[in-house]
Amino acid sequence: MANPLAKFREVFPVLAEDLRSICAEQDNLPDQVWQWFEKTLHYNVIGGKCNRGLSVVDTTQILLGRDLTSDEYFQSATLGWMIELLQAMFLVLDDIMDGSTTRRGQPCWYRQPDVGMMAVNDAPMLESAIYLLLKKHFRAHPAYLALVETFHEVAFQIEVGQTYDMLTERAQNLAEFDQARYGTIVTYKTAYYSFYLPVALALQYTGRATAGNLRQAKEVLVAMGQYFQVQDDYLDNFADPAVLGKIGTDIPDGKCSWLVVQALKLCTAEQHAVLRANYGRAGECDAQVCERRVKDLYSELGLDSVYHEYEERTVAELREKIANVDEGEGLRKGVFTAFLDKIYGRKK
Amino acid sequence: MANPLAKFREVFPVLAEDLRSICAEQDNLPDQVWQWFEKTLHYNVIGGKCNRGLSVVDTTQILLGRDLTSDEYFQSATLGWMIELLQAMFLVLDDIMDGSTTRRGQPCWYRQPDVGMMAVNDAPMLESAIYLLLKKHFRAHPAYLALVETFHEVAFQIEVGQTYDMLTERAQNLAEFDQARYGTIVTYKTAYYSFYLPVALALQYTGRATAGNLRQAKEVLVAMGQYFQVQDDYLDNFADPAVLGKIGTDIPDGKCSWLVVQALKLCTAEQHAVLRANYGRAGECDAQVCERRVKDLYSELGLDSVYHEYEERTVAELREKIANVDEGEGLRKGVFTAFLDKIYGRKK
Repeated sequence: MANPLAKFREVFPVLAEDLRSICAEQDNLPDQVWQWFEKTLHYNVIGGKCNRGLSVVDTTQILLGRDLTSDEYFQSATLGWMIELLQAMFLVLDDIMDGSTTRRGQPCWYRQPDVGMMAVNDAPMLESAIYLLLKKHFRAHPAYLALVETFHEVAFQIEVGQTYDMLTERAQNLAEFDQARYGTIVTYKTAYYSFYLPVALALQYTGRATAGNLRQAKEVLVAMGQYFQVQDDYLDNFADPAVLGKIGTDIPDGKCSWLVVQALKLCTAEQHAVLRANYGRAGECDAQVCERRVKDLYSELGLDSVYHEYEERTVAELREKIANVDEGEGLRKGVFTAFLDKIYGRKK
Repeated sequence: MANPLAKFREVFPVLAEDLRSICAEQDNLPDQVWQWFEKTLHYNVIGGKCNRGLSVVDTTQILLGRDLTSDEYFQSATLGWMIELLQAMFLVLDDIMDGSTTRRGQPCWYRQPDVGMMAVNDAPMLESAIYLLLKKHFRAHPAYLALVETFHEVAFQIEVGQTYDMLTERAQNLAEFDQARYGTIVTYKTAYYSFYLPVALALQYTGRATAGNLRQAKEVLVAMGQYFQVQDDYLDNFADPAVLGKIGTDIPDGKCSWLVVQALKLCTAEQHAVLRANYGRAGECDAQVCERRVKDLYSELGLDSVYHEYEERTVAELREKIANVDEGEGLRKGVFTAFLDKIYGRKK
């Protein structure tokens, strides 16, 4: 099949059918419950770009250095869908915490009239699906326990990242927005599950999850995840909304974005006062004026070129890290260059 | 120590310290995040009666037929605290779904002014604590994987129970309140984790979790869990609030309670109309009058003695089930009589 995403998506109905059977095997559990679960799965798990899920398949192929058999394709795609399930769980919860209205161009799950706060139970059900599917498809795999523990570990990392992010956001204190805090939040909230997790799973699946390989993967991929989030924050303000597919809201939302962290480092006392007065003013009557002032300040400070310098420097560092990767235990540099090629210079 | 609850509670600070160390070992994770997690743990996990947690210790002792060594006490109590963590997670979410205001005599966690919807992330953190502690204390135990899978299984059962309960409650349709549905909701929402789980964990911990022992335990304990929930529903209406420690609200809340299921079975067409008109009227201006009408109907229908007949019949059936338990693979009848003695005839 020519389209990797279409091929990946074809695996999902098989996994949904597994979950249906598992529900059907529970004593006296009525079909009504499965129907709800199915609706939750379809609404929240499908419809994304599946970059994280697809990268388990791609990484497995690069590690093995050959085309995958159909069993290998199915199993690596199944692990990929588990990342999509984990992400779906946290997106449902994130939208509730942020009071968001839309996600992937449709109303957030909890905003659906017949869902509401049932969403807080649906989120852990999405997580449970991971362990049900792991048990069904990987119980006999030598890395079964390692796979289970990896999902536990990464779920916890996202949770502590969410906690740190929320505590930072609530403090509404620009003085706390520094590079160190930004890096920690991004590492826990995004980098581990989006970059490290796909590779960790592929290493475990292919029997190459030595301590050394996992350590090297973490080192390169956490750095790459940070770069990815910096891109996201840059695009939120500087991208053409028509290309990006959404209108950025980090400034009115008062997010601890990479741009505001740079602005705070570079600004004069006078410019600092402008930031304090205008950053994070969503919902106030002059919110648009405030946002404009911050945007103008970002231009004055030359954040566009600050970003491009950051990008070139960071990509050079990443290429050096990749060049230094030791392939002696079966890790492959190509795993990392594949990630980097996908994100370098992205416009959306 | 004379007081079993006090002794059990002394274990918790050790586990909290483990979690603190685990947080401290995470790269660059600031203490602020641990402080939030600690506050979440203390507010939500401590302060209950710990019946479920204590019963892991009691069951382990009965299975071994002797006093526990201090290591055995600590380990079985640790498994017990994991049930308390699992329950804490679901109570946090349950209160959000129900829009409740108080829990254990204090405001619900999500109602705390500095918590709010951060609670939806705190709940999975409480669950993560289970797996972090299992890994720390049971990684080398032969039943480690079985313990992990048991928590996955029971968490999923609670989730499907919550789903079925919410779908039933929202339908607001008395015609759906029948014995079968009542039994299924109670089994999934309560019986598995409150009765089956402590014994399953103790069987796994003592190396006696044969398929036969688990099957027998499930059969007796799911039936006992149903009886326990029927008691709860009975006490909600018939207990002295001063003894019970709270005022029942099942009638105004429109709960699918055992009492309303019996009433629907026994009532005339005229009485059915009274139920339809007056059940589940919380928040309406004549809510108290409606509640009084339903309470009077329960008296007219003699539900007090219907309950006592149910109780005597059920306890006799449970005693027979217990008498028939096969102890050949190390299960002990005393495990079940200990549970039954604790709940039979309870007034609160």
